[in-house]
Amino acid sequence: MTNYKYRNMKLAILGSGFIGRFYADSLVAQRRKDEITMVYSRTEVNAEKFAKDYNIPNFSSDMIACIEHDDVDVVIIALSNDMHLEAVLACAKAGKHVLCTKPLGRNAKEALQMLQAVEDANIVGGYLEDLCYTPKFLKSLASIQAGNIGEVIWTKSREAHPGPHSDWFWNKEKSGGGVLLDLGCHCIEISRNFIGKNCKPVEVMCWGDTRVHPIEAEDNAVGLVKYENGAIGQFEVSWTFRGGMDLRDEVMGTEGTIWLNNFLRTGFEMFTSGKTGTYVAEKAEHNSGWLFPVGDEAHELGYSHMFTDMFDAIEKQSQPSENFYDGYVVNAIMDAAYLSMHSKQWEPINIEQWRGEMEGVREKKWQDYDENHYLIKEEILPNGIKKSIIKNKKTGSIEKR
Amino acid sequence: MTNYKYRNMKLAILGSGFIGRFYADSLVAQRRKDEITMVYSRTEVNAEKFAKDYNIPNFSSDMIACIEHDDVDVVIIALSNDMHLEAVLACAKAGKHVLCTKPLGRNAKEALQMLQAVEDANIVGGYLEDLCYTPKFLKSLASIQAGNIGEVIWTKSREAHPGPHSDWFWNKEKSGGGVLLDLGCHCIEISRNFIGKNCKPVEVMCWGDTRVHPIEAEDNAVGLVKYENGAIGQFEVSWTFRGGMDLRDEVMGTEGTIWLNNFLRTGFEMFTSGKTGTYVAEKAEHNSGWLFPVGDEAHELGYSHMFTDMFDAIEKQSQPSENFYDGYVVNAIMDAAYLSMHSKQWEPINIEQWRGEMEGVREKKWQDYDENHYLIKEEILPNGIKKSIIKNKKTGSIEKR
Amino acid sequence: MTNYKYRNMKLAILGSGFIGRFYADSLVAQRRKDEITMVYSRTEVNAEKFAKDYNIPNFSSDMIACIEHDDVDVVIIALSNDMHLEAVLACAKAGKHVLCTKPLGRNAKEALQMLQAVEDANIVGGYLEDLCYTPKFLKSLASIQAGNIGEVIWTKSREAHPGPHSDWFWNKEKSGGGVLLDLGCHCIEISRNFIGKNCKPVEVMCWGDTRVHPIEAEDNAVGLVKYENGAIGQFEVSWTFRGGMDLRDEVMGTEGTIWLNNFLRTGFEMFTSGKTGTYVAEKAEHNSGWLFPVGDEAHELGYSHMFTDMFDAIEKQSQPSENFYDGYVVNAIMDAAYLSMHSKQWEPINIEQWRGEMEGVREKKWQDYDENHYLIKEEILPNGIKKSIIKNKKTGSIEKR
Amino acid sequence: MTNYKYRNMKLAILGSGFIGRFYADSLVAQRRKDEITMVYSRTEVNAEKFAKDYNIPNFSSDMIACIEHDDVDVVIIALSNDMHLEAVLACAKAGKHVLCTKPLGRNAKEALQMLQAVEDANIVGGYLEDLCYTPKFLKSLASIQAGNIGEVIWTKSREAHPGPHSDWFWNKEKSGGGVLLDLGCHCIEISRNFIGKNCKPVEVMCWGDTRVHPIEAEDNAVGLVKYENGAIGQFEVSWTFRGGMDLRDEVMGTEGTIWLNNFLRTGFEMFTSGKTGTYVAEKAEHNSGWLFPVGDEAHELGYSHMFTDMFDAIEKQSQPSENFYDGYVVNAIMDAAYLSMHSKQWEPINIEQWRGEMEGVREKKWQDYDENHYLIKEEILPNGIKKSIIKNKKTGSIEKR
Repeated sequence: MTNYKYRNMKLAILGSGFIGRFYADSLVAQRRKDEITMVYSRTEVNAEKFAKDYNIPNFSSDMIACIEHDDVDVVIIALSNDMHLEAVLACAKAGKHVLCTKPLGRNAKEALQMLQAVEDANIVGGYLEDLCYTPKFLKSLASIQAGNIGEVIWTKSREAHPGPHSDWFWNKEKSGGGVLLDLGCHCIEISRNFIGKNCKPVEVMCWGDTRVHPIEAEDNAVGLVKYENGAIGQFEVSWTFRGGMDLRDEVMGTEGTIWLNNFLRTGFEMFTSGKTGTYVAEKAEHNSGWLFPVGDEAHELGYSHMFTDMFDAIEKQSQPSENFYDGYVVNAIMDAAYLSMHSKQWEPINIEQWRGEMEGVREKKWQDYDENHYLIKEEILPNGIKKSIIKNKKTGSIEKR
Repeated sequence: MTNYKYRNMKLAILGSGFIGRFYADSLVAQRRKDEITMVYSRTEVNAEKFAKDYNIPNFSSDMIACIEHDDVDVVIIALSNDMHLEAVLACAKAGKHVLCTKPLGRNAKEALQMLQAVEDANIVGGYLEDLCYTPKFLKSLASIQAGNIGEVIWTKSREAHPGPHSDWFWNKEKSGGGVLLDLGCHCIEISRNFIGKNCKPVEVMCWGDTRVHPIEAEDNAVGLVKYENGAIGQFEVSWTFRGGMDLRDEVMGTEGTIWLNNFLRTGFEMFTSGKTGTYVAEKAEHNSGWLFPVGDEAHELGYSHMFTDMFDAIEKQSQPSENFYDGYVVNAIMDAAYLSMHSKQWEPINIEQWRGEMEGVREKKWQDYDENHYLIKEEILPNGIKKSIIKNKKTGSIEKR
Repeated sequence: MTNYKYRNMKLAILGSGFIGRFYADSLVAQRRKDEITMVYSRTEVNAEKFAKDYNIPNFSSDMIACIEHDDVDVVIIALSNDMHLEAVLACAKAGKHVLCTKPLGRNAKEALQMLQAVEDANIVGGYLEDLCYTPKFLKSLASIQAGNIGEVIWTKSREAHPGPHSDWFWNKEKSGGGVLLDLGCHCIEISRNFIGKNCKPVEVMCWGDTRVHPIEAEDNAVGLVKYENGAIGQFEVSWTFRGGMDLRDEVMGTEGTIWLNNFLRTGFEMFTSGKTGTYVAEKAEHNSGWLFPVGDEAHELGYSHMFTDMFDAIEKQSQPSENFYDGYVVNAIMDAAYLSMHSKQWEPINIEQWRGEMEGVREKKWQDYDENHYLIKEEILPNGIKKSIIKNKKTGSIEKR
Repeated sequence: MTNYKYRNMKLAILGSGFIGRFYADSLVAQRRKDEITMVYSRTEVNAEKFAKDYNIPNFSSDMIACIEHDDVDVVIIALSNDMHLEAVLACAKAGKHVLCTKPLGRNAKEALQMLQAVEDANIVGGYLEDLCYTPKFLKSLASIQAGNIGEVIWTKSREAHPGPHSDWFWNKEKSGGGVLLDLGCHCIEISRNFIGKNCKPVEVMCWGDTRVHPIEAEDNAVGLVKYENGAIGQFEVSWTFRGGMDLRDEVMGTEGTIWLNNFLRTGFEMFTSGKTGTYVAEKAEHNSGWLFPVGDEAHELGYSHMFTDMFDAIEKQSQPSENFYDGYVVNAIMDAAYLSMHSKQWEPINIEQWRGEMEGVREKKWQDYDENHYLIKEEILPNGIKKSIIKNKKTGSIEKR
C-alpha cells in the first residue's frame, strides 16, 4: 500500500444520481482536504453536469477508465445495486481502494465475491453504511461499550418514508428486493453494532407484504434477528410511511435505555401558513403547517464521520469500522429474512466465514436475594417501605418480603 | 334488567390490591354520582382498611356474600387472574352486572365460559381494558374512523416497565403467563380497535424469552397479529424496561400517521437535584435528575372514560365498547401467540364465535397513472419539477416521467 | 350557609357563548352529580338552544330572574368582562354563591367591589382560573411546595394563539384591555402560585404593542412581576401566534426545574395528507400535515379539577384555592402593567388589602466553602477531579481549588 | 492581502483553556485542511501540554512572538475578556487576520477600538459568535430570509446553565460583567439576525439580579431589545439553571413560528441506572437517570460552520457573516442593558457608526375586509361556517360577520 500520510485523498465517484450528489455535498463541505478528481455517469452529459456542479476536473462515461485514472486513489460506488459487483471487481483489478454504498450486494453470494476480491487485492473495502456513523449513533455506541446500559437485550431500528427517489429501486431485478433490502440493511447493521459485532446472528423471522405500491417486491417489512446470546435486533421498514422520513432507534439494556430520533424530532420545529416564502422541505410531503427540518442533514445522517473514518483507515492502512465483511454479514441476514418471509417460520442465518467469537449457549445468571432465594423485583412503595418479590431456589415458589 | 336511568350505580369492588385502589381512586374523583358500597378482600383486615380509606359503608371477606349484597348493582373484579372465572360465574348466578379487569381469562377457554355466563344471565359484562379508553386513544380512534389517515396498514402498541407490583403476577399458575398475558392483552386490543373490530385476526407470530427475572414465564415478548385485510398489529412488551413506564402506540395509514405517548413524554418535565424535598415518583426508578411525571395518572390511563362508558351502557341497557366478547377475542389471540412462541412459526387464531364481518381476501387496488400505467410514486423535486415513477400494466417495466 | 353535604349542586350558567359551552361540557362529563338547572342568555333563542343542547330544564333572557330562581344554588358567570360586576352584585344580593370567569374585573377597582360584595354577603366567590387547576399544574405546585426544586427564583408562563373567538374581546370598552388582560391574567396567577401566594408582588415592568390586528388594545405583551423575595414572574402573551395554541410554563428553582407544555406537545402527534376524512382540529389553523391534538381538552385545561374544588369548597363552607381575592390581586398587577406599558418604567403594584405575609427584605445567605471562603461553583471535570471556584470573604478575590 | 486561494490557513490559538480546546477540537475534526501551527498560553507548561495534545508544531508563552510568527496567517483569540483589546491591537500591528471569541469587548468602547484597529489595518476581524452558526440557526435564518414566516415581530433566545467553568468569568474586573455579558451576547446577536441586521436596535429594558452565587455581578437577567420596526428581541440568561445547558430560540412571525432546541432535547434520550459503566456527561449535573446527550457537540454548537465561514471569507478577501462590527453592536446593546438594570427604565442604545438602513417609523398596514372594514380575524367554526370579526374603518366599531 502507498503511504497516504500527509497527503489528500483523490476521489472518483461512480454514479451521478441522488446518492452520488449527497456524497459529493458531504465531501466538499467544511474545507475538507480530500478532493473529488473524477466522476463517472452512464451518460456523458450527466457526468459533465455533475463535474461542473462540484468543480471536479475530470468526468467520463467509461467506468473502467474512470477507475484506472492516474489521479484517483479511492473509488466511491454510488451506483444501482446491480452494478456493485462489477464495479468492485474492476477496482480490485486496478488496485484502487473502494467504498461501496449500501447494501453491498443484492444477496450474500454477490457480497461474498466482493469481500474476497478486495481481500485478495489487499485494498480497503469500505462499506458506506452512513447510519452507523451518525453523531448520535457514535455516542450511543461508545456509551453502550462503556457499559452504561448493562447487557443489551433488545434493540429496534426503524426506517420509514414514502418510497425511494430513483426508479431503479422499484425494479426488483436491479435492486435485488424491496424495502427490506433498501432500508432493512441499515436497521440490521445498527442493531448488530449495538448488540456487539462479536456476537453471532443465528436466526431471523420476517414478515413482509406489498400493501400500497404496484410493485413485485415488499413495500413494508418487520423482522426479528436473534443473536447467539439471546439478544433480539428488531427492524421495521416501510416505503409507505406518511409524514416525512422516520429514523428512530431504541436499545433496551439490563441497566438502561437509549432512544434516538435522527430526523423528524431533533429540536427544530417550524410552522408556516404557506402564504409567503418559498419553502421546499427535503423529503417532506407538504410545505405548510408544522414542519420538522434537520439542521445539517448530511452531517446528521452520518456522512461526515463516515468519510472521515474511511479516509483515516486508508491512511493508517487499517480497516474502517464498517467494511465489506460487515456488508456481507448484513446480506446474509437479509437472505434469511427473505426466506422467512415466504416460509413463515424462523430461518437460520448462513454466514460462511464467521469472524466473531463463538460464544456458545450461555448459562443464565439470576440475581441472589439470599442463599435460598433469587430476587425477582425490589421496589420502594409510596410509603417508603422496600418490598421484595423473591423466588425459592428449591421449590420455585414466589414470595413477598 | 332494572332501569337505572336517573339513579346512581352502587358498586362492589372485589380485591383490595394495587388495581383495586386505582379503580377506587378513579371512582371517587371529580364528584361522580356512582358510589362504592362494598369491598371484598380475602382477609377481613385488608377489606376493613380499604373500606376505611375510601369511606365505603360495607366490607367483607366472603366474596359470594359481597356479590349478593342488596346494596350492590354492579360488581368490579380486581382480583388475580386465577379468580376471574369463579367471580364472574357468581355474578351471573346473582344477576349482578360485572366489570372484569384485564386479561379476561388466563386463556380463551376460561374467557369463553365467562362470556357465555353473562350472556345466559342477560347481564352486562364489561371488560376493563382501560388503555382503550385513554383520552388520546379515544380521539385517535374517532379520527381514524372518520377516515383521516386512510386505510390502516400497520399499528404498533408498546408497553414496558420494570415488572408488576404484586407477587401473584410472577407466579405462572395464578397469572396464566408472563408479560405477554399481563401487558400484551392491552397492546393487542389497542391495535385491534385501530385496525377495526369487524376485521378478523387470522394468525400470529410471536417471540418471547425469559431474559432477566428468575421466573418460568417470559419477561419480554414481541409479536405480529395479521388481520384478514392484510393489516398487521404489532405488540412489544417487557417487564425489564429501565426508565419508568413506556406506553406508546403508533398507527400507519395510507394517508396518515398517528403517534401516541401516554406516559413518559406528555409535556411534563422536571429536574431535581434531590437535595431537598420529598419527591417519590410513581413507577419511576429514581428520585432525582430529570423526571417525567404524568398530570392526572388515572385519567390519562383511561379509567375515567372507561367507567363512564361502563355505567352509561348499563343505564342504556346496551354493551360498553369493551366487553367480554372483546376479552375473549384477545385471549384467543394470546393463546395462538403462546403456541407460536414455541413452534417458531405463524399460528392460526381460533375464534369460535366470530361476530365481525367475513371479508374474505380482498383484491388489491392500485392507483392508475393513465390507461396503460400504474402510479408508483410522485414527488416534487427541489427544482419544482414533478417526477412520476410508473409501471407498465402489461410489461411490468418501471419508468420515470 | 346551607349545608350542602350529601346533596348535588344546582347550577345556573350566565352566558351561552364559547366559554359557557366549555363550562357546560365539563359539567356534564364523567357522570358528575352536580346539575345545570338554568341558563341565561341575552337573547331568548340562544338561551333555549343552549338549554336544549345540554338538557337543561330552565332558560331565561332575564339575568336577575335566573340568579334568583329557586332551583339555583350556585351561579357561574360566563359573560363578557363588562358584565361581571353587575352579575356579581346581583348574586350577592340574592345570596347565591358565585363563580366568575377570568379576569375578575376589567380593573382592580371593579374587582375590589366584587370581592367586598361576596364577603359582605357571606357567600363563596370562586375565581374560575382554570389554568391554575390543570393536572400538570396541580402536580407541579405540590412538588414545589414539597421543596423538590428548592427556592423558586424565576417563573415564566406563556399563552399565545391567533386571537379570541368572540367579537367583544376585540372591543376595549367591553373587555377592558387587550391580550394582557385576556391571557396575561392566566400567566400572572400561575407564576404567583409557583412563587407562593404569601409573597407580595411589588412592582411590574411591561411592554405591549399592537402589531398585527387593527385594534386599539395591545395584541402582544411581555412583562416581569417582581416579588418581595426577589423572585421574578415573567409573562408572555400574544394574539398573533401562528401554529395553534401555545400554553407553556417554566419554573427555575435553586435545586430544580419544571417545564410544562399544556397544549401543542403533549404526546399526541398526527399526520394527515388531508385527502381523506373530515378532520377539523380545534383552534388549529390547518387540517393537514402534522397536527397536535389534545386528548381531553377540557380536562387538560383544568376545568374538571376547577369545578370539583369550587363545589367541594361550597360543601365544606370554605374558600376554593382560586377565589375573588386572587382575582383582585391579579387585576391589581395588571393595572400596574398597563401603567408601565406607557410610562416605560417599573411601576409599583398597589394592593389595598394585602393578606399574605410581610416578609420584608431578606438577607442573602451564601454557601460556605470554609471559614474564610464562599463556594461559587463546584464541578466534576471530565478527568474525574473536583474543581471548586471560591470567593475570599474578606478580599472578595476569586480563586480556584 | 495575500491571495489564500488554494492554500490552507495556518492558525495560532491564543489561550489554552476550555474555549481554546473547544476551538482546537473543531479545527482538527473531519480532515479539515487548515492547520493549527502555534499556541500561546500564559505559562509555558500549559502551552506545551496543549501543543502536544493537538500535535501543534510550535508553542509559546510570549503572545506577541506568537502573533508575529512567520508560520501564522490567522490568529484566534481564546483569552479572558480583559485580554481581547491588547491581543487585537497586536494582530492589527502585525497585519494578521484575527478571529476573536465572544463578547468582543467588555464594553462598547473597547469593541469600537478593536473594530477601528482591524479596519485601519485592512485585515479580517471575525467575531466568533458560534451560536449564529449552528446548523439549526443557519437553516432557520435562510427560511426567515426567504419569507416563510412573514415579518418577524418577536424573537426569544435563552441560554442558561449552572455557571461557567473558568474562574476569571466570576471576576467582574476580568470579565466585564456577569451572565448578561457572558451569555446575553449570544442571545442578543441571535435575535438581531432573525429580526434583520439592517434594522436598528433602538432601546433596551433589562432586569438582572444576583440570586444564588456570592458574586458582584448579576447571575440572572432578562431583557427586551426594541428595534426600529417595532420588533422585540427578548433574552433570558442564567448562571443558576439546574438540569444541564438550556439553549433555546423562538421566533414569532406574522405567517409562522420557529422553535429551536440546541441542547437538552435534540432527539437523543438515555436512561442509566448508574450501577454499571463510566458515563460522565458534559455539563450535565448527574450521571444517572434520564440524560440528554448531544451527538456532536462542537458541530451542533456551530463551530464547524463558523470556522468554515471565517476561512472562506479570508480566502475571498471579504467579511464573515459575524465580524467585529457585529461584536461592537452587541456590546453597545449590552451597555444600554446594564444602564437599564440600574435605572429601571428603557434606555436608548448608542451606536456611533450605524451601518444598516435608516427605516424611520413605518406606517401600519392593516388587512382590508372590504372597502369600509378592516379584517381582525377569520376562523372556520367546528360546524364548517366561516366567521369573520371586522372593524369599521370610520366608526371603529367591532362587528361579527
